[in-house]
Amino acid sequence: MQTLKVELAERSYPIYIGEGLLANPQCFLPHVAGKQVAIVTNETVAPLYLAQLEQALAGRAVISVVLPDGEAHKNWETLQLIFDGLLKARHDRRTTIVALGGGVVGDMAGFAAACYQRGVDFIQVPTTLLSQVDSSVGGKTGINHPLGKNMVGAFYQPKAVVIDTASLRTLPARELSAGMAEVIKYGLICDEPFLGWLEASIEPLMGLDPQALTEAIARSCQAKADVVNADERETGVRATLNLGHTFGHAIETHMGYGVWLHGEAVGAGTAMALEMSMRLGWIDQAARDRGLRLLLRAGLPVVPPAAMGADDFLRHMAVDKKVLDGRMRLVLLRRLGEAVVTDDYPQETLRATLTADYAAIAAQLRGK
Amino acid sequence: MQTLKVELAERSYPIYIGEGLLANPQCFLPHVAGKQVAIVTNETVAPLYLAQLEQALAGRAVISVVLPDGEAHKNWETLQLIFDGLLKARHDRRTTIVALGGGVVGDMAGFAAACYQRGVDFIQVPTTLLSQVDSSVGGKTGINHPLGKNMVGAFYQPKAVVIDTASLRTLPARELSAGMAEVIKYGLICDEPFLGWLEASIEPLMGLDPQALTEAIARSCQAKADVVNADERETGVRATLNLGHTFGHAIETHMGYGVWLHGEAVGAGTAMALEMSMRLGWIDQAARDRGLRLLLRAGLPVVPPAAMGADDFLRHMAVDKKVLDGRMRLVLLRRLGEAVVTDDYPQETLRATLTADYAAIAAQLRGK
Repeated sequence: MQTLKVELAERSYPIYIGEGLLANPQCFLPHVAGKQVAIVTNETVAPLYLAQLEQALAGRAVISVVLPDGEAHKNWETLQLIFDGLLKARHDRRTTIVALGGGVVGDMAGFAAACYQRGVDFIQVPTTLLSQVDSSVGGKTGINHPLGKNMVGAFYQPKAVVIDTASLRTLPARELSAGMAEVIKYGLICDEPFLGWLEASIEPLMGLDPQALTEAIARSCQAKADVVNADERETGVRATLNLGHTFGHAIETHMGYGVWLHGEAVGAGTAMALEMSMRLGWIDQAARDRGLRLLLRAGLPVVPPAAMGADDFLRHMAVDKKVLDGRMRLVLLRRLGEAVVTDDYPQETLRATLTADYAAIAAQLRGK
Repeated sequence: MQTLKVELAERSYPIYIGEGLLANPQCFLPHVAGKQVAIVTNETVAPLYLAQLEQALAGRAVISVVLPDGEAHKNWETLQLIFDGLLKARHDRRTTIVALGGGVVGDMAGFAAACYQRGVDFIQVPTTLLSQVDSSVGGKTGINHPLGKNMVGAFYQPKAVVIDTASLRTLPARELSAGMAEVIKYGLICDEPFLGWLEASIEPLMGLDPQALTEAIARSCQAKADVVNADERETGVRATLNLGHTFGHAIETHMGYGVWLHGEAVGAGTAMALEMSMRLGWIDQAARDRGLRLLLRAGLPVVPPAAMGADDFLRHMAVDKKVLDGRMRLVLLRRLGEAVVTDDYPQETLRATLTADYAAIAAQLRGK
């Protein structure tokens, strides 16, 4: 087991990473202050892991709330199921909400914890690679609005994050790839040596080697924790974590939530950010191709949907949270291992990026 | 104009109190960081004060969202109207939400500000006495759930609070009395000299004398700010602000939201807290009667609804937030000017308090 500590003064918390942690009471009980616990999970994860977790929490008054699965349900109506469950079981302000599942469950359970009686304790048990390396660090919680993703939410920190690498064995291959998009991102934005390690380790990682996974997850969480430490409320450097996300959110919104996985959209969005960074002359073609090749080896799309034109992107990007007072800020790469957030670029470079022939680039790289 | 400063480190903010402040741009513009402003108000307040406030904000891109009036609308559906308005007008993370109205508008607009894109700036312009002395200080925001009041919300601080005493001229007499319940509360829980001042000033206050109002509001806000400063997240002394509220919430829940005004329920609830404190031997009958008499002179009910029995109270009080792990904590008076939060009392004293003959006590006091 590896343990990281996310340092946020009185809101600091540990991240435990290892095989079989779901069944280990010592990962949970020190972080449960009251007698009541509410496990929030979904109908896919519940049959796989709920009993194990309930076992680890034996001795507490545990209820479980099983949500429908999927991003399409990341809305107020589903959130309401959590509040209903808590209130019907008369959970008070000292209850602890445990999120068991992927990013959607974590975001909703975390937002419920942030809002229930104006804030109760919260433990994250992310069961997908994406949520393990992304949403379990940083305190972002929330739900979608018909007019935009994650438009309603809160910054709210968990008391602990428990990552059981064994839970990845039941994860569909497509979702494993989607999670790798975020892992690769950390290498690209702030850790060039990690990028090299990933290039050397991508096969064992995709083959679910537990040690490789623990290392990749720990380094990803550490990278994110370092950035979050430096900038908890995302006014500056934290925005670099959104590499590929502004383009990616536009893809998700345009295609409809759930058609592309979030990580898949981030993969294609990262390809676009690499392309634009090259077109600005910040990275050379070899660096762009190094990034693209790793994305391809992780099984990720590097080509945006054929159905989307430049205007589609621009329209959807304009409601993204990175728009401040109407100026569109993008996360781009100054070099591999260093990202910048900037709105200082020629509009025609953005348009050229949106209309570049990614299919041809990918075909060429696959051919090499 | 009086200016108080609520000290909360980097979240400190000023409270401006005086006649005609609604029309004063200098109370607002220094606290508006971006170009976009969203005024949230309701259908009762909008015709009275919206144009004036828009005038004070001239030069910014201002939208307004007009909600239906009343506690019955303090729910997710109404909150959604705020998010819809913000997203349709493409307000970004630097927008400022201005709450123009009473406590319901302030709670909802504040919660919307806490949640919109995980938190945007927020200015409160409370137009009722209750919201001026209570909800404008302390950062409590939220909405009701069918199973309980204020069960979903956030602690979220405004950038400034602007209190225009002139807005009380359009306030119904019943709501003025309701606001006085909270003013009197501050005297009872932490400021015996203020209680004496109120006994001497209750007639000018009820007659809307601007100077008396400014003084009463400023001292109330200061009292609350002092308590909030000491305990921002309500783990200890802050709970004393709930004097009369546990009983009062039970009345509101039982009668249905909006039948009794919140302040009226707090008035009767405070009478019950006085009664229980006397029955515990902590205050004498003269002290109880001093409190009751001031409540009566402010036009407040001191008799709970005839329809409510002890079991009704106990049932509704059990889901109140003051219940920790099943123990019912109450705010009571150790003496006039000093409140305590305790679950250390004989159950039969609580039951005797719930079944006391308040109508007879009130009749006797009115006869004196």
